[in-house]
Amino acid sequence: MPVVLQVAVCGPGECGEVERDHAYRVGALLAARGAVVICGGGGGAMAAAAAGARSAGGLVVGILPGDSRAAASPDLSVTVVTNLGQARNAVIVWSADAVIVIGGSWGPLSEVALARRRGVPVVSLGGWRVTDADGRPVDGPVHVDSPEAAVAAALDPW
Amino acid sequence: MPVVLQVAVCGPGECGEVERDHAYRVGALLAARGAVVICGGGGGAMAAAAAGARSAGGLVVGILPGDSRAAASPDLSVTVVTNLGQARNAVIVWSADAVIVIGGSWGPLSEVALARRRGVPVVSLGGWRVTDADGRPVDGPVHVDSPEAAVAAALDPW
Amino acid sequence: MPVVLQVAVCGPGECGEVERDHAYRVGALLAARGAVVICGGGGGAMAAAAAGARSAGGLVVGILPGDSRAAASPDLSVTVVTNLGQARNAVIVWSADAVIVIGGSWGPLSEVALARRRGVPVVSLGGWRVTDADGRPVDGPVHVDSPEAAVAAALDPW
Amino acid sequence: MPVVLQVAVCGPGECGEVERDHAYRVGALLAARGAVVICGGGGGAMAAAAAGARSAGGLVVGILPGDSRAAASPDLSVTVVTNLGQARNAVIVWSADAVIVIGGSWGPLSEVALARRRGVPVVSLGGWRVTDADGRPVDGPVHVDSPEAAVAAALDPW
Repeated sequence: MPVVLQVAVCGPGECGEVERDHAYRVGALLAARGAVVICGGGGGAMAAAAAGARSAGGLVVGILPGDSRAAASPDLSVTVVTNLGQARNAVIVWSADAVIVIGGSWGPLSEVALARRRGVPVVSLGGWRVTDADGRPVDGPVHVDSPEAAVAAALDPW
Repeated sequence: MPVVLQVAVCGPGECGEVERDHAYRVGALLAARGAVVICGGGGGAMAAAAAGARSAGGLVVGILPGDSRAAASPDLSVTVVTNLGQARNAVIVWSADAVIVIGGSWGPLSEVALARRRGVPVVSLGGWRVTDADGRPVDGPVHVDSPEAAVAAALDPW
Repeated sequence: MPVVLQVAVCGPGECGEVERDHAYRVGALLAARGAVVICGGGGGAMAAAAAGARSAGGLVVGILPGDSRAAASPDLSVTVVTNLGQARNAVIVWSADAVIVIGGSWGPLSEVALARRRGVPVVSLGGWRVTDADGRPVDGPVHVDSPEAAVAAALDPW
Repeated sequence: MPVVLQVAVCGPGECGEVERDHAYRVGALLAARGAVVICGGGGGAMAAAAAGARSAGGLVVGILPGDSRAAASPDLSVTVVTNLGQARNAVIVWSADAVIVIGGSWGPLSEVALARRRGVPVVSLGGWRVTDADGRPVDGPVHVDSPEAAVAAALDPW
């Protein structure tokens, strides 16, 4: 087990109030458990996760797709400016000991897929679901229904 | 419209006979239509797509995740050695005017998600399906049931 | 030895007439020797190398830093749209069996450094020179003074 | 000016005692000035910079080229696992408000070149020097001869 766990919180850059609240609480709970929070560094669910982590005195890293810190959330402890576009999703996933996805959209789904490809725990709070061509669920993320359950599912395997 | 279309054919590195046949025929049909075929450069469906494209005298590019040409399919016209791991999936998607996914697995699903994020046409031949948290299909790839339909769906928007 | 050699031709996006002529002739000579030409896909020396390779009936690949084919040279056989910014320089270098640098500027110097780090042959035609802190030349690129010598130095080790 | 400056300290993974001492002192001085220290996360000068920053209670981020945290320095506050190989050098440079290079080798020289290409301040403490084809110095890094001068040159433009 790594000395300090790093957990990615992935969600859409534009989101509703429920997702924002979920992301904030997930960020705060992870920080309270001592985990470093990794996020995409932008708005919406990403900004909410960063604000939550900061509210609990945690360390939060934004891994941005663009070429400057201009678009970064103000709550980040560290800003990684990748200039890699959506290829930065792989950097988020490879840096994380577990991935929590909040809400459904294509960017976070790419992170679910990469995390399953890599083999780390993936937890979904309101995220999209994946089935095979015949409609059977594939062995993908653990689906939970609260921030508390999401954080437990991400950290407990460790 | 670009002068020459570039179409990505994405599929698992280990696959069954049906997927292999589908990938070969998709590669051949794309080449016959004058499109450049882009693939991941490895085995399974990727190697079959390359072999199909070559059989029709087409140009086929492999965009590899590793750090050498050692694992490359022998049917590639050009080998791009990214050494980017799965971040290379984004390079495949950004280079393609359309994406055809064959069969279900997490790597290709990440390419579906990135292609939808980017906004180019995505066609699925036997690939996984995505629904929202309530089980409703999301506006994702066009699902088809033959190589001919896959190639038509990829090229016709252009 | 790979079946078909791939050689990168690196040079500034804005360049003078001498560099343009050198890049064109290097591209043409490589194509005449049967090598695939890899370049950055943009203007200046990159466009000249692509035009030269095409004039000799060769295959030429542009590996672009941006997110679309809009800025691509019209002489490319294949366009790889990385959307990786200058991180794409590493993709060029890792895809190449040898690197020829034409003229001096910081982008191409990063490619010289990465190619030396990787260990493939590096040839410089009018490029910058590197010394240690005491002014002694370091074991870097082979410096040549003609396109013919550049191509010979790139291909002869193979 | 960003709220918190981020400064990259780049140096070889294998280095002598002088470079190690320089890197440690640069890391400590940057942390004492409140800057976040960014490094490559590996051994040699990278590990020394991390240890120095930690000794001064600073925040230090390692941006690794490989696919796991196994090779990471134990003094990092945050570990970014890029799995991008040497393309990660661009991520280090784009994340930094200034770059300090310690000692000479090809990896750090690629970071100098990328940082000059990007346009942020570059400071060299014992690093290699670059001249044009006629032996004239190019407008590259500021060369200094002490850790104190390096940190001043990196932070003073801000």
